[in-house]
Amino acid sequence: MANALSLNTVTLSGDGKSIEILDQTLLPNETKYLSLNKAEDIWEAIYKLRVRGAPAIGVTGAYAYFVLADQIETEDMEEFTAKCAELMEYLNSSRPTAVNLSWALNRMHALLLKEKESRTVAEMKELLKAEAVAIHKEDIEISRGIGSYGFELLQEIGKGAGVMTHCNAGTLATAKYGTALAPIYVALENGWDPKRDLHVYCDETRPLLQGARLSAFEMQTAGVDTYLQCDNMASYTMKSGKIDIIFVGCDRVAANGDFANKIGTSGVAIIAKHYGIPFYVCAPSSTIDMTLASGDEIPIEQRKADEVTEMWYRERMAPEGVGVVNPAFDVTDHDLVTGIITEKGIATAPFKESFEKMGIRPVEKFVDKN
Amino acid sequence: MANALSLNTVTLSGDGKSIEILDQTLLPNETKYLSLNKAEDIWEAIYKLRVRGAPAIGVTGAYAYFVLADQIETEDMEEFTAKCAELMEYLNSSRPTAVNLSWALNRMHALLLKEKESRTVAEMKELLKAEAVAIHKEDIEISRGIGSYGFELLQEIGKGAGVMTHCNAGTLATAKYGTALAPIYVALENGWDPKRDLHVYCDETRPLLQGARLSAFEMQTAGVDTYLQCDNMASYTMKSGKIDIIFVGCDRVAANGDFANKIGTSGVAIIAKHYGIPFYVCAPSSTIDMTLASGDEIPIEQRKADEVTEMWYRERMAPEGVGVVNPAFDVTDHDLVTGIITEKGIATAPFKESFEKMGIRPVEKFVDKN
Repeated sequence: MANALSLNTVTLSGDGKSIEILDQTLLPNETKYLSLNKAEDIWEAIYKLRVRGAPAIGVTGAYAYFVLADQIETEDMEEFTAKCAELMEYLNSSRPTAVNLSWALNRMHALLLKEKESRTVAEMKELLKAEAVAIHKEDIEISRGIGSYGFELLQEIGKGAGVMTHCNAGTLATAKYGTALAPIYVALENGWDPKRDLHVYCDETRPLLQGARLSAFEMQTAGVDTYLQCDNMASYTMKSGKIDIIFVGCDRVAANGDFANKIGTSGVAIIAKHYGIPFYVCAPSSTIDMTLASGDEIPIEQRKADEVTEMWYRERMAPEGVGVVNPAFDVTDHDLVTGIITEKGIATAPFKESFEKMGIRPVEKFVDKN
Repeated sequence: MANALSLNTVTLSGDGKSIEILDQTLLPNETKYLSLNKAEDIWEAIYKLRVRGAPAIGVTGAYAYFVLADQIETEDMEEFTAKCAELMEYLNSSRPTAVNLSWALNRMHALLLKEKESRTVAEMKELLKAEAVAIHKEDIEISRGIGSYGFELLQEIGKGAGVMTHCNAGTLATAKYGTALAPIYVALENGWDPKRDLHVYCDETRPLLQGARLSAFEMQTAGVDTYLQCDNMASYTMKSGKIDIIFVGCDRVAANGDFANKIGTSGVAIIAKHYGIPFYVCAPSSTIDMTLASGDEIPIEQRKADEVTEMWYRERMAPEGVGVVNPAFDVTDHDLVTGIITEKGIATAPFKESFEKMGIRPVEKFVDKN
């Protein structure tokens, strides 16, 4: 239990001068932390996915803004503001489609614009630090909230629960706890024995293998009884009776409860329904987009063929020139979803009414967990 | 169309002195035929899966028996018989769990035992050659029969049909045509345009990637409009409306229509049912085991973890020591099956009655398509 959350995806260094991130490109073979305080290094770390997961990138953006702003040597607020605007733009270019990054950078910059008339540069730097810390803390609270609601479901099942997940929506994708894996961490914090009380099955999640490289890694690091399976083994495992509940993350939820998540999620949901296994989506309320009537309105990114035909391999394992299907996400119909766990509670069908009762407002945000 | 079946999985050389096989371990990167006439080389080719697929291994075994028996220099029938028994045992040890191999070797040897009293060694060699050729021909006829019934289903859909398949049950797994892919080849023989009239989607089939390496390769070689997808993309593709019918092979069918096939097949069947897409099993009648009441009686082989965690990869992509689920097959419930296509016709529910009407007798045979 002491070890359950030993991985620190992103933190501010003790002296407040650097960002410390776990280099996820080296996982699962090497656990190496990077201490970054140069703009180019931070840019590269985000670009190369050394840190990934929408919430984690948001926190990284906030700390990056502060750490780099703190290095600006001037007493002149206009000069300070101009330089901050520049660094914001530069950082944002590291992953332009990651909405959480621009959201966090904009929130930092909006504070600066709002407060700059009445503050010195030194005071402003303190305010920016506090804002970044607040963004970090809020992210942890959201994840912990999701985890607590999910843990209630685990308690209903009882100790010894078998959990299946897809892709990585764990602590490595957030500042702490994750979303889909948050219920596991909260269970461990509540004294559940990682080896006896929980059995976690991770889909490897082709083509990029986030399940094998990240989810299996973080669950094993937390001491949990962990199993890795190829995506096509999910039906076998569910039929075996070992799975009591399925938790998945999500990238975007429509008002009717349809949701987009890593490719393969809809298949897991269909198979779960066939076997009568409860299927839950773990979603920060910010991913619920009340402006979308249904999942049909969620665009699906098609990615490059070589991720399927070559990446990770010693040699090409498909014929040259073959057509390739490579959607990054798929949309799961709401009628396959048992519940959507947010930090504000668990929504159930009809989802739109359930979301409204929880006070979820329209937001526009597309979250990329690659 | 001239090219549709240009791949020769296994043949007897023109002079009858060697077996010629396509080395499948080099696919899809290299198309290389091996000409084998030494016992050790043939043994190695089977052991190393240079030739694989139950029917193809059976044909290889029959030709191997003849080619090696033909080299025995004696006029003495007892000596000839003893040496044939030895080589049969040796060949069978190359893949002891491949029932088709021992079936073919036993059939060859049974002929020898039956005829040896009334024949010279030279006559016996001719008889053995004819028997091996007959086994080869029968295999082609069975596949062609399955293909013809499957083609009728394609004709009902009409030109432009979208077909999905899992693993490789194509010409590379048999002497010719395959089982699940036989309907495609028969369509091409009937003048269907490979680029316009057929669209074939191949699941890559983790962990060993037979779909990527073999099915996508042989469909592309036949000129067919071919798409490769990760296993977890099947739901996305089915939802897109591109799939009209699904053909899969099988390893063993129980009397009630439950069947075992490559891991992942049951998930494909469940998802197909969800989307209302017809799901057909292509099965030589010899794989229908009327002695098994249901699929619960079919044992599932568990394979080594490193196939999932390391094989094919530059580096390990899962943490050391993690648990791994790696069943080679799964069992699909008969209520997910639209029909079972055999060389004797298409069986439908209730399957037991349907099989009996087709005159299918109890056999015991487990067929390994790895």
